[in-house]
Amino acid sequence: MEGAPRLAGWLDSQRDRILADLGQWLRIPSISAQPDHAADLRRSAEHTAELLRGAGLEHVEVLETAGGPSVYGDLLHAGPGAPTALVYGHHDVQPVDPLHEWHSPPFEPVVADGAHGPELRGRGAIDDKGQVQFQVEAVRGLLATEGRLPVNVKFLIEGEEEVGSPHFEDLLVRERGRLGCDLAIVSDTDMWAPDVPSVCVGMRGLVAFDVQVRTAAADLHSGLFGGAVPNSAHLVARLVASLHDDQGRVTIPGFYDDVRPLTAAEEASLATIPVDEDAWRRMAGVEYLEGEAGRSLLERIWTRPTCEIVGIGTGYTGDGIKTIVPATGGFKVTFRLVPDQGPARVTEAFRAWLAAAVPEGVEVTVTPEGGVAPALTPVDHPAMGALGRAVARVWGKEPLFTRIGGSGPEEALGRVLGVPVLYLGVALPDDRFHAPNERMVLAQFWKGLLAAGELWHELAAAGRG
Amino acid sequence: MEGAPRLAGWLDSQRDRILADLGQWLRIPSISAQPDHAADLRRSAEHTAELLRGAGLEHVEVLETAGGPSVYGDLLHAGPGAPTALVYGHHDVQPVDPLHEWHSPPFEPVVADGAHGPELRGRGAIDDKGQVQFQVEAVRGLLATEGRLPVNVKFLIEGEEEVGSPHFEDLLVRERGRLGCDLAIVSDTDMWAPDVPSVCVGMRGLVAFDVQVRTAAADLHSGLFGGAVPNSAHLVARLVASLHDDQGRVTIPGFYDDVRPLTAAEEASLATIPVDEDAWRRMAGVEYLEGEAGRSLLERIWTRPTCEIVGIGTGYTGDGIKTIVPATGGFKVTFRLVPDQGPARVTEAFRAWLAAAVPEGVEVTVTPEGGVAPALTPVDHPAMGALGRAVARVWGKEPLFTRIGGSGPEEALGRVLGVPVLYLGVALPDDRFHAPNERMVLAQFWKGLLAAGELWHELAAAGRG
Repeated sequence: MEGAPRLAGWLDSQRDRILADLGQWLRIPSISAQPDHAADLRRSAEHTAELLRGAGLEHVEVLETAGGPSVYGDLLHAGPGAPTALVYGHHDVQPVDPLHEWHSPPFEPVVADGAHGPELRGRGAIDDKGQVQFQVEAVRGLLATEGRLPVNVKFLIEGEEEVGSPHFEDLLVRERGRLGCDLAIVSDTDMWAPDVPSVCVGMRGLVAFDVQVRTAAADLHSGLFGGAVPNSAHLVARLVASLHDDQGRVTIPGFYDDVRPLTAAEEASLATIPVDEDAWRRMAGVEYLEGEAGRSLLERIWTRPTCEIVGIGTGYTGDGIKTIVPATGGFKVTFRLVPDQGPARVTEAFRAWLAAAVPEGVEVTVTPEGGVAPALTPVDHPAMGALGRAVARVWGKEPLFTRIGGSGPEEALGRVLGVPVLYLGVALPDDRFHAPNERMVLAQFWKGLLAAGELWHELAAAGRG
Repeated sequence: MEGAPRLAGWLDSQRDRILADLGQWLRIPSISAQPDHAADLRRSAEHTAELLRGAGLEHVEVLETAGGPSVYGDLLHAGPGAPTALVYGHHDVQPVDPLHEWHSPPFEPVVADGAHGPELRGRGAIDDKGQVQFQVEAVRGLLATEGRLPVNVKFLIEGEEEVGSPHFEDLLVRERGRLGCDLAIVSDTDMWAPDVPSVCVGMRGLVAFDVQVRTAAADLHSGLFGGAVPNSAHLVARLVASLHDDQGRVTIPGFYDDVRPLTAAEEASLATIPVDEDAWRRMAGVEYLEGEAGRSLLERIWTRPTCEIVGIGTGYTGDGIKTIVPATGGFKVTFRLVPDQGPARVTEAFRAWLAAAVPEGVEVTVTPEGGVAPALTPVDHPAMGALGRAVARVWGKEPLFTRIGGSGPEEALGRVLGVPVLYLGVALPDDRFHAPNERMVLAQFWKGLLAAGELWHELAAAGRG
């Protein structure tokens, strides 16, 4: 049997229950970046474990790491010759500030009408609890309608993805035995548009830092000292401003050295994507675009490395004014990496740049905030064909092959387990990942669930074929 | 009778009581910059009024303004021909962050040993409650020892000095009748060193702004959007960095247009000041000095205008990392002004610079945070001679004539009331004005009290002579 025709009927009877279950999960503020949410992160892991058990998965276990906990579960009864797939997602979420920009409380999920029909709003709705939930519900639905899964599946749901997966590779190495598989399926990516299905073939990597400087023993009175002493706010601004030249290029010496040029095939594939820059700009909620000179929009967000300052804090930023020369300041920066850049080489280049840019006498502290290498799956891999057919059957048209600018631990997943990584993600570009009013479009969610069921059959057929 | 010989004896019996009274005042967190301290600011005004009444001043009254309250009191029984002096100080204090850098709680004053002997530590100890207290205690002491004051005195103690005195000029204009005087005495400045007494002849002015920008409707995922959309952190950093050129000069067109060159006499006076740059650097707690190229240290802090960023806030600055492109950001900036720069002209120049520097499509909000014109009192004014003799008698050597880089409402005081402004201040440059661990050296405090008594006699003699 190919496909999962009875799954859709089952789903019709389950929508309310599934949304209620997901709502319970979204109420847990599992913010991995903030230590005061450690207990919530653990509650979320336990919720995840219950979710897996409830759907029929076996050997469910919270896997401890040196940081936030991951969750494992499997179902390995597909019989001889059936392939084994490992589903990856994460149960941690981003911080929620600026809180005042949320239209409803981030951890009180609501369903409301949106531009693409009903949508579920709340932190984690699409990134990534919703996308984990549809994979789990596909397992539950196939068990309910077919009594078994056509492939062996393993779930690995991480708890530190939003802080750069600092302990994920250690976990993969330690649990390599139990995690063995033929391919990994990641559900944490987006599609081009609701009516333009797409599957991702690669993700940019990431390396991030927190930098703090001190230019004086204490804040100084700006009248008594201003004009003659170093000012941390000036220094931080100069450092940040000097990270890009006036062509939008990153100025760190050696930063672009390891960037692999696109192949002709990759350039041709990029050219098939129907880009409406103005629509994309409106979707982003910005009045103009900027970036590296001489590069297209898709190159800028998919195939070129970038440097983004994610925060600057120095001096007094409260009400009114304070007449000081700030003694301390800092910034947080993320670099998005593309093949063949590696976090270690970029870290080295960044540290060297910083050492040269900061005047002698300034105290500097650099804290690494995680690193992930870029990932790229060959478009012509057989499993990619199975994924394409599964998506085409549910959305009614062939998917485009895209990349994604964001980063996850996909590169480590593929490298440590030695398997290709496929991406079945149903997010939309304007789902407000990491921002206030994160949402998941329900139509995409239900299609994702059905596509997951289709994919297991496609993979079983490919595995037998 | 010239001088106040019995005041010193009285003081010896009063030290503990004076410190206890001042300690009570310092326990009131009268932070004018923070609206949630409005009730404390009022309590501080009421405390000030009680202090004046208790010392023997009459017509004591809390003067309301559109912002924080000022306090008035007078004693006008010196008889025909005696001059009338108005003492100015302020009862509001600076915010206390970063709180963790305080060695003792900011509003729990303690006396401890320091580099210059015993010192009183706490927010407001020297800026400016301590300096108001010594003026009030000098009145109390003269009344106790001589039964009367040789001059008429009025006290005007402001409640919004630390936020740029936004309503002070309105108050002066409204109360011009009651505030009429022959000269103003400001106690809110510092001396060169404990053994190098000095009196200030001028202060830089100030104009301050809060600038906020918005580059997107909401924070964006740095992976999905990074590299192609404007980033508020980058914009804020570029704006701040571009306020100075590589010679340390402010780049705003027209900024220096109204700067009056120093006269030969002023340059000669500057040259008498014994500057030890290395000692000054250590006192500031910095490892190196910087500033406008081609200008001496004293020019940089006294006679040249400056631009200091007092704070930058944009994006995520909490624990760990957040992978966003910030949608909003801002900075606070103060400009120190010198004769003949005016807040209005500099405001206009700053707004024009900002409008030209910010790309179209960015939302910009500029909030003025107060303005004060620079002030300069002629060195050869007769009252300046009286002040010099009073200080010389207490410190045992002639004072130097200095300027101060900081700003108060002194220019408005002199201009609206039409009187010269003298400065009797006993702070030291390393008293940590506006910073954690603010302190007042007790030896300076007691000398200030005696010098205030001497000054009333000197002024009476000058007024009669």
